[in-house]
Amino acid sequence: MQNIKEARQLIRAGEYTGYTSGWCRDYVQGNLCIVDKSDAEDFAEFCRLNPKPCPVLAQGDPGDPVLKSLGDINICTDLPRYRVWRKGKLVDIVSDISSYWTNDMVAFVLGCSFSFDQLFLDAGLPLPHLNDGSMVAMYRTWNECESVGKFRGRLVVSMRQFRADHAIESIAISSRYPLAHGTPVHIGDPTQIGIRDLTKPDYGDVPKVVQGHLPVFWACGVTPQSILTTSPDVEIAITHQPGCMLLTDIPYSKIAV
Amino acid sequence: MQNIKEARQLIRAGEYTGYTSGWCRDYVQGNLCIVDKSDAEDFAEFCRLNPKPCPVLAQGDPGDPVLKSLGDINICTDLPRYRVWRKGKLVDIVSDISSYWTNDMVAFVLGCSFSFDQLFLDAGLPLPHLNDGSMVAMYRTWNECESVGKFRGRLVVSMRQFRADHAIESIAISSRYPLAHGTPVHIGDPTQIGIRDLTKPDYGDVPKVVQGHLPVFWACGVTPQSILTTSPDVEIAITHQPGCMLLTDIPYSKIAV
Repeated sequence: MQNIKEARQLIRAGEYTGYTSGWCRDYVQGNLCIVDKSDAEDFAEFCRLNPKPCPVLAQGDPGDPVLKSLGDINICTDLPRYRVWRKGKLVDIVSDISSYWTNDMVAFVLGCSFSFDQLFLDAGLPLPHLNDGSMVAMYRTWNECESVGKFRGRLVVSMRQFRADHAIESIAISSRYPLAHGTPVHIGDPTQIGIRDLTKPDYGDVPKVVQGHLPVFWACGVTPQSILTTSPDVEIAITHQPGCMLLTDIPYSKIAV
Repeated sequence: MQNIKEARQLIRAGEYTGYTSGWCRDYVQGNLCIVDKSDAEDFAEFCRLNPKPCPVLAQGDPGDPVLKSLGDINICTDLPRYRVWRKGKLVDIVSDISSYWTNDMVAFVLGCSFSFDQLFLDAGLPLPHLNDGSMVAMYRTWNECESVGKFRGRLVVSMRQFRADHAIESIAISSRYPLAHGTPVHIGDPTQIGIRDLTKPDYGDVPKVVQGHLPVFWACGVTPQSILTTSPDVEIAITHQPGCMLLTDIPYSKIAV
């Protein structure tokens, strides 16, 4: 599905609740984290101090689900699936959060590394997970994020494996997109960031590990969800379901530096 | 030595014949390859087809040792040391090539990865070889260059070792400097490009191999010298002595993209 208007309509109507990787490849995709307005200032500061996992594309006004700066977006309906969190526990998975939305909620949309995928393909870098419809593998590292108030926890990364020269090219490409997590945080030996087994991701699908290729790890917008599980004082939060992202109306070229 | 005019004067007078790494860090350094005008067209094409090892900063006019586009440069006197080659054999090492210069000679100055070193240091990336005054290690790979006419042979690379996050940063930085070899050609396992033992470089000094660090390999301007040894039909050529580069008057900022 490459047409942004059709994709938006399908998702808004609740007719598509799956992964968005490979969808509308010319447009920026976003991670979601909605918090109560009493937590919004701390969460904004958390993002500012952790710009690699949490590059803010847009912050909504309290109670307003419309995010005009990202296009024709209603944050209550425009993601395929959402996760609802209470006190650090996942309590619901839904395709529409209108019934959860209150006047006290503030939406944060964070950049997403799916933005790289089309650029990688354009440069001739293979992404086998896109061919078999599986999700990129994601892992909770042992790297601690900078904590702010109630928000504390560990960095989550997404992993892509490449031949060495392709790994180099992937780093050069992603360096031009800081709002989509920018350069990777790690390359090579996964144990150096606390990942013991690449075939046991914490989120996404099990990758096929290729001998002689280098795993490359980007900071991931699933990090806030990992943070929520270790921040039990956060009363309520709503995030996207990993892999089920917000499709924005922003072309990737607009966020290149 | 950071003052470019003083450095030029010392070298021109034959009073300094050593390495230029760490010298005049704000200025672009260059590799040298001088060929007979009958070979100049082929060598220019060789550079065009192999832009990573041979990014051309300047090509002189036949018989003219002055390279105005790079500043106040006389190519016969302004490098600390030169190597003279006949039919693929090294026949002389001198600090002034005025006695070898003829009206048939054409000078090519190629970009140099020393240009990165100051940028790496500015970004907090350690370069231990600069602290102990040794030369960066260089290796002949098994990667064949694109051949043109008499010019054929294998790619030479320079190697720097970094912690993974620093390796990533080094790639991002060098991607902005295609005229100084640009992004690396390899990262990680040296055997993948035919280097069996990092402690046995073909040029430069033996590096201290650090466990857990990643070796990163950039195409190197010593490549033409390696090419000359496998191109015995080239009657005469003059290159720099590895590590003893041309200091130009061009600030690095001018070659950033």
